[in-house]
Amino acid sequence: MDLGELARTRRSLHSYTDDELTKDAIMGLFETVRTAPSSFNLQPWEFLTVRSESGKERLKDCAYGQQHVTDASAVVVVLGHLNRSSFAERTLEDQVEKGYRSRENADELLDMFEHEELQDNVEWTVQSCTIAATYLMLAAWNNGIASCPMAGFDPRSVENEFDVPENLHPVLMVTLGYPDLSSREWNRERKWRRDVEDMVNFEELSFS
Amino acid sequence: MDLGELARTRRSLHSYTDDELTKDAIMGLFETVRTAPSSFNLQPWEFLTVRSESGKERLKDCAYGQQHVTDASAVVVVLGHLNRSSFAERTLEDQVEKGYRSRENADELLDMFEHEELQDNVEWTVQSCTIAATYLMLAAWNNGIASCPMAGFDPRSVENEFDVPENLHPVLMVTLGYPDLSSREWNRERKWRRDVEDMVNFEELSFS
Repeated sequence: MDLGELARTRRSLHSYTDDELTKDAIMGLFETVRTAPSSFNLQPWEFLTVRSESGKERLKDCAYGQQHVTDASAVVVVLGHLNRSSFAERTLEDQVEKGYRSRENADELLDMFEHEELQDNVEWTVQSCTIAATYLMLAAWNNGIASCPMAGFDPRSVENEFDVPENLHPVLMVTLGYPDLSSREWNRERKWRRDVEDMVNFEELSFS
Repeated sequence: MDLGELARTRRSLHSYTDDELTKDAIMGLFETVRTAPSSFNLQPWEFLTVRSESGKERLKDCAYGQQHVTDASAVVVVLGHLNRSSFAERTLEDQVEKGYRSRENADELLDMFEHEELQDNVEWTVQSCTIAATYLMLAAWNNGIASCPMAGFDPRSVENEFDVPENLHPVLMVTLGYPDLSSREWNRERKWRRDVEDMVNFEELSFS
């Protein structure tokens, strides 16, 4: 689907059919997700995909009991690496080989990444992982799969429940499933959006 | 362009032609951006779009002198509201009217949003604004306009230089311009991406 139509017709949805979302269908979406840009091309993301009833129940408990977690066919927990060193050697070497940066610069960056405090990188990893999560939502809708991004969960519970290593930060959950076109939610009028003129300022900020 | 092709062919680019990026062309991109999802549909974003040479010079100083800031035809500074109350009344009222939530729930949320500490909401606004920034990059490429997301700038300098109100947080810059197809950068081999099998785990995390 053309991006314009895709964006106009996509909507966050909690009401899904019971149709199975296969592993293959899910893996196909990630062929688009993997092309997402990230800071220094560090790709600091991991995707924990939960389809089992028991797994979704555990996630629902982490998400203050929100019903659409278990209603979804699958829930993807987007986790961000807090250490920029995770894939740095591989991606910087690639950038040196292809002429994007000098060996000296790559070595400097690698050294910097290896000596950072993990907690200083939360905002950094949230940015890159949210770009990837956005690709996931758009790729889903391009394949007829509805989604809803969720930030309303307790990251500590997710870490404990799913043995998340210390260097990974739970960024977002994305629920996935085929849209229930007979649902009340689907048939509600679309939500209000701000006008472009209200959001965009040229050269300086002015608030009316 | 279909999303799959759009994602595959898009690449972050610093090399732009001198062709003007008109205000109309830029405003057209935001017709797609405005459809982006956000937490509670609060749409906590403002876009400061800089096209003037003097404005880009000031932004370049905020971005540690990075040349592609002034090489770009336009730079969009994505700013996020730290107070969730900014558009809460408008959007919650809309959700009550259309049946998405009860009046009681909307009132509770509004009360909560009005009594929060701004600094607790950084991660929250970074998420919603990064979704919008991703829409901007994809909409640009769908219109033949290249872009590069940039987190490498000093947010305090941006705040001082452009009189950013205290309740707004600089999240990202996005450089925009028509791609210079004769540039060395454009003709370099594409950067490495992680394999899907390496990024996606089912049911539990396992790292090989």
